[in-house]
Amino acid sequence: MNAEIIAVGTELLGASRLDTNSLFLTDGLNTLGVEVTRKSVVGDDVVRVADAVRAALDQAGLVILSGGLGPTEDDVTRDAVALALGRGLEFSQAIADQIEARFAQRRRKMVEINKRQAFLIAGAIKLDNHNGTAPGQWIEHGDQILMLLPGPPNELKPLFETECVPRLTARLPQQFIRTRAFRVAGMPESDLDQLIAPAYRPYTSVTTTILAAAGDIQIHLRARCANESDALDQVEELGQKIEELLGDRLYSRNGDPLEAVVGSMLRERGASLAVAESCTGGLLGARLTDVPGSSDYFVGGFEVYTDAMKTRLLGIDARLIASETAVSEAVANAMARGAREKTGATHALSVTGEAGPQSATPGVEPGTVWVGLATPETVRASLFHLPGNRNRVREFAVQAALNLLRRAL
Amino acid sequence: MNAEIIAVGTELLGASRLDTNSLFLTDGLNTLGVEVTRKSVVGDDVVRVADAVRAALDQAGLVILSGGLGPTEDDVTRDAVALALGRGLEFSQAIADQIEARFAQRRRKMVEINKRQAFLIAGAIKLDNHNGTAPGQWIEHGDQILMLLPGPPNELKPLFETECVPRLTARLPQQFIRTRAFRVAGMPESDLDQLIAPAYRPYTSVTTTILAAAGDIQIHLRARCANESDALDQVEELGQKIEELLGDRLYSRNGDPLEAVVGSMLRERGASLAVAESCTGGLLGARLTDVPGSSDYFVGGFEVYTDAMKTRLLGIDARLIASETAVSEAVANAMARGAREKTGATHALSVTGEAGPQSATPGVEPGTVWVGLATPETVRASLFHLPGNRNRVREFAVQAALNLLRRAL
Repeated sequence: MNAEIIAVGTELLGASRLDTNSLFLTDGLNTLGVEVTRKSVVGDDVVRVADAVRAALDQAGLVILSGGLGPTEDDVTRDAVALALGRGLEFSQAIADQIEARFAQRRRKMVEINKRQAFLIAGAIKLDNHNGTAPGQWIEHGDQILMLLPGPPNELKPLFETECVPRLTARLPQQFIRTRAFRVAGMPESDLDQLIAPAYRPYTSVTTTILAAAGDIQIHLRARCANESDALDQVEELGQKIEELLGDRLYSRNGDPLEAVVGSMLRERGASLAVAESCTGGLLGARLTDVPGSSDYFVGGFEVYTDAMKTRLLGIDARLIASETAVSEAVANAMARGAREKTGATHALSVTGEAGPQSATPGVEPGTVWVGLATPETVRASLFHLPGNRNRVREFAVQAALNLLRRAL
Repeated sequence: MNAEIIAVGTELLGASRLDTNSLFLTDGLNTLGVEVTRKSVVGDDVVRVADAVRAALDQAGLVILSGGLGPTEDDVTRDAVALALGRGLEFSQAIADQIEARFAQRRRKMVEINKRQAFLIAGAIKLDNHNGTAPGQWIEHGDQILMLLPGPPNELKPLFETECVPRLTARLPQQFIRTRAFRVAGMPESDLDQLIAPAYRPYTSVTTTILAAAGDIQIHLRARCANESDALDQVEELGQKIEELLGDRLYSRNGDPLEAVVGSMLRERGASLAVAESCTGGLLGARLTDVPGSSDYFVGGFEVYTDAMKTRLLGIDARLIASETAVSEAVANAMARGAREKTGATHALSVTGEAGPQSATPGVEPGTVWVGLATPETVRASLFHLPGNRNRVREFAVQAALNLLRRAL
């Protein structure tokens, strides 16, 4: 079975908002073995929405509409679907009572206009919405299925999970899905794809998705088979091959981000971490403290954005900075050593570089970043030439620092 | 004139990627007075894409396709549009030569498959692409216009600006656009809309768009009129009313973010800033150093994520933390005072709070944040109860700190 998703709402046709519900719906549909073959966004116009529904029914077994179920004149989805199917709308006293009760619970009186939400398309099944007033609707039309879902994500998501997924599962041939997720650091997307494509291509019942961010790549495998052991075998077998090809560059087998993986390693070893940040200005600490409970291993550190602060807060000799420049192996090492000593942490990371757009350091190109690491045994630094604009260089630098620590641990 | 946008690419029908080109295109089209009435995403299937083109031509004066112009078998946009229009494809030796030259410039040999990109739909005008091998195409079809644009944003954007906007402008009735952009801190979106809606509603020739992020709201005004002075008058008049209503909550009249506005104020006053961050863990420093040239006023500071570091790095009495808890007015003040003294900056901000999901401080709910500010004259702190999850609380806290400093300056 294939599906088309229609998002209804003039606000989604402006220059600032995207229909993100479709990503959530696509993920749920793919898990059930349903592929999405078209997505569209249509404004709050009853004729245009009806046209879109008719066009979708020409192509797809399943048509999902999101939005346009509210109480105002702009909310045309019910009317449009009724028009496209040539069905009537029926007032449901039960729904009206539910809406009224919802208002009463919040000590508000229901405004008459809300009764628009109590109309069901003839033959539709009401889908309970526990997070808003507009119920969803499930319509069987010959062999085809239509779903009308509310637009707000906090209403659409639980409603889809609890009301739609079980109904769809009962309609679809039984399938078993098994997934694996890997994360990889320190490798460009194109190199990674070139490396693993020969491994994943032959697995036609496994969908391999590669998602790249600055210095971080996610690989998702999803096997879909008629029996459970086949699905498990396929995903395990391909997963194993990918793990072997990637070796040490693979850092996560459960989707955890690099800051969480490094955090677990530090916690296991009873180690602690401090940072000294120049060009990242706090971004490395911010990433580390994204993880709840990170105070178990991350103590804190220094934002030493100016040369004067490198000297004042970390005790780095001003003559060293003058002779070597702030973007140098010697200063990166001195920053890591200083952060470790000043905080008493077992480990310290430092980052110093030129994020751009202009370089303030003579002879140093934007994108040049030194990462230092001080451990109980040693202090050393690595040089990176990172691509992209200021923002991307800073994100890459954080990722490079975390990955350096991971490899050392 | 109205437009439909069709994004071509099976990768845009998965659960992880959205068509963001359409936002850029919509902004450009709206500026020219063209409204987008439908957007769709179609996979790499020649029949489906041709169907989508035919459906769009039934409804819109302008049809824009993005993506599917590359050299591989998957790239079907040229074939699909030719099919939909009933036109042929013509090989252009000039384009083939350009592609070959592009490869030669990079010291690579052109693979034969790239010649697929040298086919123009009969009657199309080639749109030069200086950032990739696939040229765009401009097709006039009776009164209607079709554009084929490359999918990568770094190719699509400049090509649209330089090749499409001038051609469209020449076709459209002359209009004058004048815009204003405001940014507002410290106010929920719903309160803001309630406050300014009575002002903007009567201005039917001005489009007002409100965009909200954590603690930060943007208001965009766009007046579109047949003559220049009307457009300017409208946007100025409404802008003035909005400024009066918002008063001191309005922090930017040119779209600059809060960290840049605060930075300019510090620079003008010859002041400097340090930070001491607990729950934000570096996020405040990261935001401040997002701005190129921020080393003019931002010196750096301290990530004091644990209580021990608040004592060790900032010299805060451990008994004060024990008696008042780390999330308290006294500790926020001590952190700001300590950061100012240790760095020698004229001003210092501190942030200490519980970002959640659990609270480690007895009696303190997640979302509770104290922001301290030390100036040459005084030290004081403000209490915030911030909504949302860990990530959102941290972003709100940074915004609250920057806004506190702005109001003090």
